[in-house]
Amino acid sequence: MKCELISVGTELLVGDTLNTNVQYLSRELSLLGIRVCYHTTVGDNPKRLEEAVRIAFNRSDLIITTGGLGPTQDDLTKEVIADIFHKKLIQDEKTKEDLLQYFVNREFTMTPNNLKQTFIPETAEILFNPVGTAPGILMKEQGRIIIMLPGPPREMTRVFQEAVLPILKQDQNQLVISRYYNLSDIGESAAEDRLLDLIDTQINPTIATYAKMGEVLIRITANGNDENEMNALLDKYEEIMLQRFEDNIFTFSKESLQETVCKLLLEKNISLATAESCTGGLIAALLTEYPGISKVFGTGLVTYSNEAKINLLGVKKETLEKYGAVSEETAREMCENLQNISKSMINVSVTGIAGPDGGSDEKPVGLVFIGICYDGDTQIFKYHFNGERKVVQQKTANKVFHLIRKTIVDKAK
Amino acid sequence: MKCELISVGTELLVGDTLNTNVQYLSRELSLLGIRVCYHTTVGDNPKRLEEAVRIAFNRSDLIITTGGLGPTQDDLTKEVIADIFHKKLIQDEKTKEDLLQYFVNREFTMTPNNLKQTFIPETAEILFNPVGTAPGILMKEQGRIIIMLPGPPREMTRVFQEAVLPILKQDQNQLVISRYYNLSDIGESAAEDRLLDLIDTQINPTIATYAKMGEVLIRITANGNDENEMNALLDKYEEIMLQRFEDNIFTFSKESLQETVCKLLLEKNISLATAESCTGGLIAALLTEYPGISKVFGTGLVTYSNEAKINLLGVKKETLEKYGAVSEETAREMCENLQNISKSMINVSVTGIAGPDGGSDEKPVGLVFIGICYDGDTQIFKYHFNGERKVVQQKTANKVFHLIRKTIVDKAK
Repeated sequence: MKCELISVGTELLVGDTLNTNVQYLSRELSLLGIRVCYHTTVGDNPKRLEEAVRIAFNRSDLIITTGGLGPTQDDLTKEVIADIFHKKLIQDEKTKEDLLQYFVNREFTMTPNNLKQTFIPETAEILFNPVGTAPGILMKEQGRIIIMLPGPPREMTRVFQEAVLPILKQDQNQLVISRYYNLSDIGESAAEDRLLDLIDTQINPTIATYAKMGEVLIRITANGNDENEMNALLDKYEEIMLQRFEDNIFTFSKESLQETVCKLLLEKNISLATAESCTGGLIAALLTEYPGISKVFGTGLVTYSNEAKINLLGVKKETLEKYGAVSEETAREMCENLQNISKSMINVSVTGIAGPDGGSDEKPVGLVFIGICYDGDTQIFKYHFNGERKVVQQKTANKVFHLIRKTIVDKAK
Repeated sequence: MKCELISVGTELLVGDTLNTNVQYLSRELSLLGIRVCYHTTVGDNPKRLEEAVRIAFNRSDLIITTGGLGPTQDDLTKEVIADIFHKKLIQDEKTKEDLLQYFVNREFTMTPNNLKQTFIPETAEILFNPVGTAPGILMKEQGRIIIMLPGPPREMTRVFQEAVLPILKQDQNQLVISRYYNLSDIGESAAEDRLLDLIDTQINPTIATYAKMGEVLIRITANGNDENEMNALLDKYEEIMLQRFEDNIFTFSKESLQETVCKLLLEKNISLATAESCTGGLIAALLTEYPGISKVFGTGLVTYSNEAKINLLGVKKETLEKYGAVSEETAREMCENLQNISKSMINVSVTGIAGPDGGSDEKPVGLVFIGICYDGDTQIFKYHFNGERKVVQQKTANKVFHLIRKTIVDKAK
C-alpha cells in the first residue's frame, strides 16, 4: 500500500511550526508495513490543496491529511476534499452533542464558528477526537482511503492511535512484530557502533535506533507471515542485545526512563524525596507527571538560593562558605539532611551550575553533583554536562533517574 | 516569487529523521519575502524525484532541494536533475581540490566514491560547502532557479547562509515587516473571533494566529516597498489590537509568557517563592529555565503529601481535615505560610486534582486552587481545567504565570 501524507497549514510554509506530524505518522505507518512515498505540504489555500489532493489521489492508495479541520475560516481541508468528490457536508448530530459537551465540561462559552466542525462529508466515517473539538474523517473513494486528521500533534496522535490504527491494522495482512530496548547512560552513536555489524547486513529483522535526550530506543522489527518463526528470529537478536547492552537496557518497551523509575518505586513501595538546586524542580515535576506517584513521593524542595539551603535543608553555612554551593560536601549535606526532613527511603540532592553564567575555571558551567542517600547510605556523583542551560538541567534530571534505578537494582542484587 | 522545497531521503519517509531543514528554509525565505507554497518529500528514488521536480518546475519559480548530493549510490538528486534538463555532469577541478584538501585537513583517508561529489552539471554554479564534502549547486533554467543543497542540517544551513542568501537577497526587492502580539488567558478560536472582520478582508497586511498551550500568538505582516508606509499601516492595526486584546497581550514579540514573567520579575526586582502540590515542581522548573532567575527566585516547595504540607508549610491539620487538601482554605494557608518561610514579595501556592484518580463529584479532576500572596495581600483563584494529567498540570502552570503577571501589572496601576 502506497501512502502519501499531506500537511495543510501556512504556519508550516512560513516556518513558524516544525512539522513533527509527518515524522510521527511516517514511523507509525512504516511499522505497519505501509510504504510512505510522499510528504506534501500546502498552505491554507483551497486551490493548492485541491491540486495536492488530486495529485496524491493519482499516485497513492492511502492519503492522510493533517490540519485544516478546525473552527476558523482558513480551515478548509474537509470542504476542499468533499468538493473534489462531490460530497455534501451534513451536520452530524452525535458530533454536535460531543462538541457542546466539550465546552460544558470545560466551562467555556462556545463561539458559533465551532459548529463548522460538526459538518461531515456524507458517507464519510467519523474518527472521534477525545482531546479536541475537530473529529477526524475517513472517506473511501474509488478503492482509495482518505483520512483527515486534526493538526495539533496532541489531537492528531490520539485520533490516529485510537481510531485510525485499528482500521489500518485490519487492512494489512503481513505481520510485523517489533521488540524494543530502551537504553540509558549511552549515546546514540556509541549504541549504533556496537550494532554496526548487524545494521550493515540488515534485511529482516531491521534495526532502528532513536535518540531522545538521555535515552536511546532500539527497535528490532521482523516481517513475515509466521508468528513463531518471527519470534524465534527476534529471540536470537534479543540474546545479542542482552550481551551487548546489559547495563544499559532499562526496559523492553518504549516506556521512558522516568516512567520506568516511577513504576519501580511504586512496585517496590520505595519512598523518595528530592532537594534540587540547579534543576529547580524539574526532577520533582517529572516524578509528579506520573499518576499515583503521591504514594511514594511527598516532599520536594527547590533550594535555589543559599538561604533556602540553610533555612529549609539545614546545610551548614560553613560548608557553603568553605566548599561552595556546588560541591560534593553541599550535595552530601543536602541529601542527608533531606532524609531527616522527609523520612523517605531514597533522598536525592542536586547542585550544579546550569549556566550560562556562574561558571569559573575551577567550577565550569555544566558541573553537577548528585547525591543519593538510600537507607542511610550516601553516594555522591560528579558530572560535567555539556550544552546550554536547559540541556544541562535535562541531562542532570536524566542522570538522576538513571542513578535512582541503578541504586535500587544494585541494592536488590 | 513562488518557491517549492523538495526534500530527498528515505529516512524522512520512514520517520527516522525529523525534517528540520524545511522549517529552517521556510523561515529564512519568508523573511526575504519569498513565498514558500509547497514542501515535497520523496525518497531516494529516481523516478519519484524526477516526477516531483517536474511538478515543481511547472508551478514554482524557485526550487530548492535538500539531500541526495552525497557520495553514496543512493544519492541521486544531481543526476536526476541534470538528466531532466539534458545537462552533462562534468568534473570540476576546483571542487576536486577542495575535496582532497578536506580529507587532508581531517587526516581521513578518502574512499573513491567521494569523487562523485566533484561532478557538476555543465553551466551550473557551485555553492561552496565549508563544512562538508558535497557542494551545493545552482542552475538557471527557463527563467527558474533550481538550487540543490546537501541534506545534513549543519551543512545545509552553512551553504544557505554563505552562498545562497546573498544571491537571493539581490533578486528580491520587496520588503516584509511583521509585528507580533502574544496573548494569554484566551483561546485561539475566541481570539480569532474578535479578528474575523479583519481576517475576512485581509490582503495586506495579513493576519495569522498560532496557538500554543496557554498562549495565542498573532502575527501581522505587511508587504511593500516603502518602509514608512508599511509601518504606518501596521500602526493602524496595532491600535486595533490594543483595543481588542488589552487584557491579553503580554508581549509584543514571540517571547513566551514564562519568559515575559521572568523578565518582569528581574526588571522590577520582585522576589517570588512557590509552594506546589498538584503541579509538583513544574512552576519552579519553568522559572529556573530562565537564566539569572536566582536573583529573585530562591525557594520552591513541593508539598505533594499532606505530611509535607503540615511539616514544611505549617498548614493546620484541622484545615486539611475540615476542608481537604484541595480547597480555598488550604491554598490560602499554603501561600500565607510560605511568605513567612521565604520572605519573598510574591508567594504562590497551588493545590488541585491533576487526575486521573482522586476526583469526586464535589471535587472533580481538574479542580485547582491558586493562591497569590503579594505584599501580604492574598487572592485565591479557583479553576476547573480539562484534559489529562499533564495537561491539567501545564494549564495550571500557565495560569499561574498569567496571574503573576496580572498581579504585578495591576499593583503598578
